[in-house]
Amino acid sequence: MGLGNLGQVLARTFLDQGHAVTVWNRSQDKADDLVARGATRAATPADAIRASDLVVICVLDYTTVRDLLTPAAGDLAGRVVVNVTSGIPDPARELGAWITDSGAAYVDGAVYAIPQTIGTPEAFVLYSGDEKAFGRHRALLETLGTAEFVGTDAGLAAVHDVALLSGMYGMFAGFFQTVAVSGSAGIGAARVTELLVRWLKEAIAALPAFAAEIDAGDYRTQTSNLDINAVGLANILAATRAQGVGVELLTPLHALFEQQVSAGHGAESLARTIESLR
Amino acid sequence: MGLGNLGQVLARTFLDQGHAVTVWNRSQDKADDLVARGATRAATPADAIRASDLVVICVLDYTTVRDLLTPAAGDLAGRVVVNVTSGIPDPARELGAWITDSGAAYVDGAVYAIPQTIGTPEAFVLYSGDEKAFGRHRALLETLGTAEFVGTDAGLAAVHDVALLSGMYGMFAGFFQTVAVSGSAGIGAARVTELLVRWLKEAIAALPAFAAEIDAGDYRTQTSNLDINAVGLANILAATRAQGVGVELLTPLHALFEQQVSAGHGAESLARTIESLR
Repeated sequence: MGLGNLGQVLARTFLDQGHAVTVWNRSQDKADDLVARGATRAATPADAIRASDLVVICVLDYTTVRDLLTPAAGDLAGRVVVNVTSGIPDPARELGAWITDSGAAYVDGAVYAIPQTIGTPEAFVLYSGDEKAFGRHRALLETLGTAEFVGTDAGLAAVHDVALLSGMYGMFAGFFQTVAVSGSAGIGAARVTELLVRWLKEAIAALPAFAAEIDAGDYRTQTSNLDINAVGLANILAATRAQGVGVELLTPLHALFEQQVSAGHGAESLARTIESLR
Repeated sequence: MGLGNLGQVLARTFLDQGHAVTVWNRSQDKADDLVARGATRAATPADAIRASDLVVICVLDYTTVRDLLTPAAGDLAGRVVVNVTSGIPDPARELGAWITDSGAAYVDGAVYAIPQTIGTPEAFVLYSGDEKAFGRHRALLETLGTAEFVGTDAGLAAVHDVALLSGMYGMFAGFFQTVAVSGSAGIGAARVTELLVRWLKEAIAALPAFAAEIDAGDYRTQTSNLDINAVGLANILAATRAQGVGVELLTPLHALFEQQVSAGHGAESLARTIESLR
């Protein structure tokens, strides 16, 4: 149910694996391609739900999920609802409780993939909620990408979603900064992005090391400490301003570095910045 | 000259390739390991400069470079100075001019590598300044990592440095956000970082697509537009706040999304965010 960009690819992946797939979308023409490939078109959400034991939903938001399922609530009993709509934790828990009350099992999912990798092990989907129901359909769900169950709290997939998308948005913020400052010196976006992608693939190796320090709460370091990074980032912000480019995306990070330095932690690891956030 | 973490690895890489290397550091004991491996210890910066045609400098900042070279200025003529100290554009240009006036050729460099990859083609170093001097020593410099000349303006390596480090800091900001919000739900840093690294390696594929849109100035999109991302990021910030975690690192990015949406560009690509920065 739900044939936006992601929903279409999910349905096609199930079809390509030889599964019987019934599809539904509010604008029915979004189903045309899939029907041509062998899917059955459902006229209503209730028809779609009645067609299968496993109902996979991928729509705009959780309110839409609730609106779709409400008139079909009487048909939910005994089924498994896997909802991969992007969501946040509390609404996921509320939706899960409501679906469970309707007699269905609820599994919340979060998809990490670009459309081209769906159906390969490179894509991964995190699931939380009803573990038995997940287990029963695991093989089928694995056709979408590597499937990982992260916990029985239905909100946990969404917690991961908030966390991992925050990480992605941080990377995007850095990208905008990279392109803006180099663009001000006449360097094209494609050219600098080629270098940035290469550099980020190197620099990403720092993250597991930071994570180990955070888990251990031990921020002693021999390498790049908060003092050095506070000075380095201040220089970068000054040079960016001098190029006439906005610095608002990275200024708050510098403020956190300074906060840690002021608190006497300048000789400790950059990873300690986390203590200013939580 | 300069045997901090990076300088040590650079010197060792030259030594391992069988080159004659003279080393100097303010605290002389930093040279002990290298001398044991066959390097010659110089007593003063001037001695170090007189020892080789190619002088590679890696110290704390550009002021330190100037302080080191000033008493040895009479020995610079005819040599090539490659300065891989982290710097920003204008001081790089000023230092380059001063060294050129002293009769040496100046090449400014920026190293992109973690210590473990120095000496492999995975590491890369960007150079700018005197192109002939760079060409004369290119083979030697390639022993450190892939060497790329980015332009004859001595400040250009530093422009790239500001740009690429900004991108790295953005990624780090996202990482802190990821770990803080998942940590508030009891998920360990190492565990979520494993997932984050996997996800960023997927999501990074969006960057060259954004860059192409930026270079073309054409932000029409069929996929994830500014409207969807403004709502999505607002939900993420709200969920993060609800977990008691600070949102200051990503709030400015959301403000830029909203600025573009308010200007009537909600149906256009996320890449358009750059227009609010430059």
